[in-house]
Amino acid sequence: MTAADILGYAAGALTAFTFLPQVLKTWKEKSAKDISLYMFVIAFVNEIMWLIYGVMIDNWVIILTNAVMLVMSAIMIMLKFKYNHQ
Amino acid sequence: MTAADILGYAAGALTAFTFLPQVLKTWKEKSAKDISLYMFVIAFVNEIMWLIYGVMIDNWVIILTNAVMLVMSAIMIMLKFKYNHQ
Repeated sequence: MTAADILGYAAGALTAFTFLPQVLKTWKEKSAKDISLYMFVIAFVNEIMWLIYGVMIDNWVIILTNAVMLVMSAIMIMLKFKYNHQ
Repeated sequence: MTAADILGYAAGALTAFTFLPQVLKTWKEKSAKDISLYMFVIAFVNEIMWLIYGVMIDNWVIILTNAVMLVMSAIMIMLKFKYNHQ
């Protein structure tokens, strides 16, 4: 495994959890007025594309990273609708 | 170019603009109270990792995608500090 490989895996692992602080903050504060719905809708659609791509090229790093992000985007979309006006 | 390649490029192009709706919304509404600072700090650090990885493996799709996201994350961090209490 090269230094580039290690950096790529580390970057991928961190990417998977990018949305986690937002999910936790919105969950806790029950306020999502300032959150862009479109951002998470774009992310949701985009992660489905990445998942299909990951399956097509049989790359488990892409599949797992985007499966985590897909779930978090779905949660954020639900939280946005639930807490939009608070 | 295979179908997987085309899907990968399309997914990468869409990824680059994931943060754009949030940047525009926060810019326009001047309110960032509900935004997670940590999310965009993680994204910022993560995109620097991806940029270095892209340079190491000489992949321009990774370099360009993450350069766009790095700029948008930096803008969101500035907007968060500017409009946190409004």
